[in-house]
Amino acid sequence: MTEAQLIASIVDRVLARIGEADPRQVIVGISNRHVPLSAADFQTLFGYPAPKVKKHVRQHGEFAAEETVTLHGPKGAMTRVRVMGPNRPQTQVELSRTDCFALGIDAPMAQSGHLADAAPIEIEGPAGRISPEHAVIVAGRHIHMGPGEAAALGVRDQDRVSVLFGGERGGRLDNFLVRVKDSYLLELHLDTDEGNAIGARTGDIVRICKD
Amino acid sequence: MTEAQLIASIVDRVLARIGEADPRQVIVGISNRHVPLSAADFQTLFGYPAPKVKKHVRQHGEFAAEETVTLHGPKGAMTRVRVMGPNRPQTQVELSRTDCFALGIDAPMAQSGHLADAAPIEIEGPAGRISPEHAVIVAGRHIHMGPGEAAALGVRDQDRVSVLFGGERGGRLDNFLVRVKDSYLLELHLDTDEGNAIGARTGDIVRICKD
Repeated sequence: MTEAQLIASIVDRVLARIGEADPRQVIVGISNRHVPLSAADFQTLFGYPAPKVKKHVRQHGEFAAEETVTLHGPKGAMTRVRVMGPNRPQTQVELSRTDCFALGIDAPMAQSGHLADAAPIEIEGPAGRISPEHAVIVAGRHIHMGPGEAAALGVRDQDRVSVLFGGERGGRLDNFLVRVKDSYLLELHLDTDEGNAIGARTGDIVRICKD
Repeated sequence: MTEAQLIASIVDRVLARIGEADPRQVIVGISNRHVPLSAADFQTLFGYPAPKVKKHVRQHGEFAAEETVTLHGPKGAMTRVRVMGPNRPQTQVELSRTDCFALGIDAPMAQSGHLADAAPIEIEGPAGRISPEHAVIVAGRHIHMGPGEAAALGVRDQDRVSVLFGGERGGRLDNFLVRVKDSYLLELHLDTDEGNAIGARTGDIVRICKD
């Protein structure tokens, strides 16, 4: 068991305890801009087949990679953008709306993997460049959970829920997409614009409300 | 009457009509990073006494200036940051939390003019540099209104209210500070992080709720 897995395990046990008191409580994860790549694109950009693990994240098997890329848009470039592993079927670039303005890219809000309307971008790595036609999205708010948690909350995969945030910048954000899979750990994902605006940080505990 | 004043006048008349139906409706203004300067600091940075009008904003007498500055923080610089006029008693740098991360500045959330805990920064102009010790804040959400609008809503200066936002990224943001002055036009101010996160743009009409 790695340190990251140990921490995840402890967090889950603490959350399970909290959950006994209130199944609506959920842990926050703020996603900075990141890039999961297809195996072919990874090979082109880096000259070898797969990313190296820098740090495991909360969801099983996913990790921030040692590798970073440079993004090029019509208005600017962004260096040291983190690659996420493992490789996926499609290359996807998840940016905040603020990032999109800085790069001059008009990207749709979409859920991960829904790239039909995603915007074009140029991605530069140490061994090459790619220019995917449909890659950039602003990720829609969502909550990962397992079937047990979904049952406890009375929600199903693809439902929408609202979430309450406390503090000086608090409020209620609506339209979180519920995503249920056996492998998912309970976790709410926001991008950096959302986290900054609502005053939330990775590790905060917030409360789901269904109205 | 300038074009900006004409537009403001038309907007006010439209809003007055909307207001007859529902006094809780308010127009959104998104504030990008900006810098109002003291007269002494303006002189040091530009070599002449006062900023030139580029574009009037909605609140009477205030304007985006022709002049811009470069901001320097421990982690980076930000060019072409807009000066706001007219000059004020104190130099103040209003940034989003995203801007603060980019510059490496740990600034407090505060209301405009409350600079006791504001963070230090270096500001560069074409004629000189200044390094104010207490200048940088992340501006707290607030709503400008005149006494008539405050009375119609049943709120007072310094009250806190919540506001509902529609759309895919909608929700409710809490703790807007109510600021009442005879000269104020009804307008809700958010920074770019908040606007991006809640899917709101300048000119949107949203609804105040008091709970």
